[in-house]
Amino acid sequence: MILEDIIDAVKDELSVQRFAHTRGVAETAEALAVRFGADPEKAKTAGWIHDIAREWSVDRAQDFARKIDVPQGFSQVPTLLHGPIAAYMLQHRFGLKDEDTANAVKYHTTGRAGMSLLEKVVCLADAIEPGRDFPDVPKIRDLATRDINRALAESFDSVIRFLLEEHRIILPLTVTTRNDLWRQVENGYDD
Amino acid sequence: MILEDIIDAVKDELSVQRFAHTRGVAETAEALAVRFGADPEKAKTAGWIHDIAREWSVDRAQDFARKIDVPQGFSQVPTLLHGPIAAYMLQHRFGLKDEDTANAVKYHTTGRAGMSLLEKVVCLADAIEPGRDFPDVPKIRDLATRDINRALAESFDSVIRFLLEEHRIILPLTVTTRNDLWRQVENGYDD
Repeated sequence: MILEDIIDAVKDELSVQRFAHTRGVAETAEALAVRFGADPEKAKTAGWIHDIAREWSVDRAQDFARKIDVPQGFSQVPTLLHGPIAAYMLQHRFGLKDEDTANAVKYHTTGRAGMSLLEKVVCLADAIEPGRDFPDVPKIRDLATRDINRALAESFDSVIRFLLEEHRIILPLTVTTRNDLWRQVENGYDD
Repeated sequence: MILEDIIDAVKDELSVQRFAHTRGVAETAEALAVRFGADPEKAKTAGWIHDIAREWSVDRAQDFARKIDVPQGFSQVPTLLHGPIAAYMLQHRFGLKDEDTANAVKYHTTGRAGMSLLEKVVCLADAIEPGRDFPDVPKIRDLATRDINRALAESFDSVIRFLLEEHRIILPLTVTTRNDLWRQVENGYDD
């Protein structure tokens, strides 16, 4: 079973805390998939593997990333590399070739314009799994019961606000995703 | 005199309120140029012309913009076109060919990575001229007495926060500029 192999590998790679987060993302992604009509098995699998490389050293991640396809801008922020690395491992180590699942893993931190429903589900699950605790999370969890675009748009706004407060780099891709999500929210834009 | 021609034309194009804003930007840009060592005449000229096309209709701006060079993404937000249009008018109607002055006008709304000192001066003057009144402006005016990069970085953060609150589109270029400015602020980044 691919999923069992992934869970075993994830357990070896991650701290207890991040393993608990990962379980939360997998379960939340599965539930959101059922709610909004994405594939629950793909959502759960993407949730389990998404952070498998999250605790790698910067050197190890950068070495690996040089050999694979990484979205523009990711190399500016080494902590973002774990998404594309996990997507590559899913397809080439665990043998699950499905592109949509791989993209949901690859883009789980930044999203992208034109995300599939599965990509949205995994990205949102990562933001609102039960272990998450930040000021906007109750509002986003509430929106996630009924409007996935609005929930995710608010989640990206919250991330951007956090990066502003911390004086940390904001990827142009993050903003492109956020713009695209608000465009999909009914009456989202005044422009 | 080119500057007199520009001021006459600007007076014809703008409402009383925006003419007052324009005068404020020209005077503030000149003062900032003196303070930080940019060319005061170029700064003043850029300040006077920067909003000359700001009150054009969307149709008129888009028609004009189709014939000139417009930075990527500007056509998504018609209200941004007035910068490139004013820069084109500066060079082709008023005959001031200087590239640095034209770029300061062209990019006064979004900035760009690698802005020249003159570009920074004009962009900051637009944010803090005496008529501006928004919550962060006292802090930014204070920073503008000593640290142009920090003042402008805070100004961009303030603009991005405003666009988030209003659910309005944020250009990737705006974020790229903001990242580049924080990178220039001493100890600006943790990444």
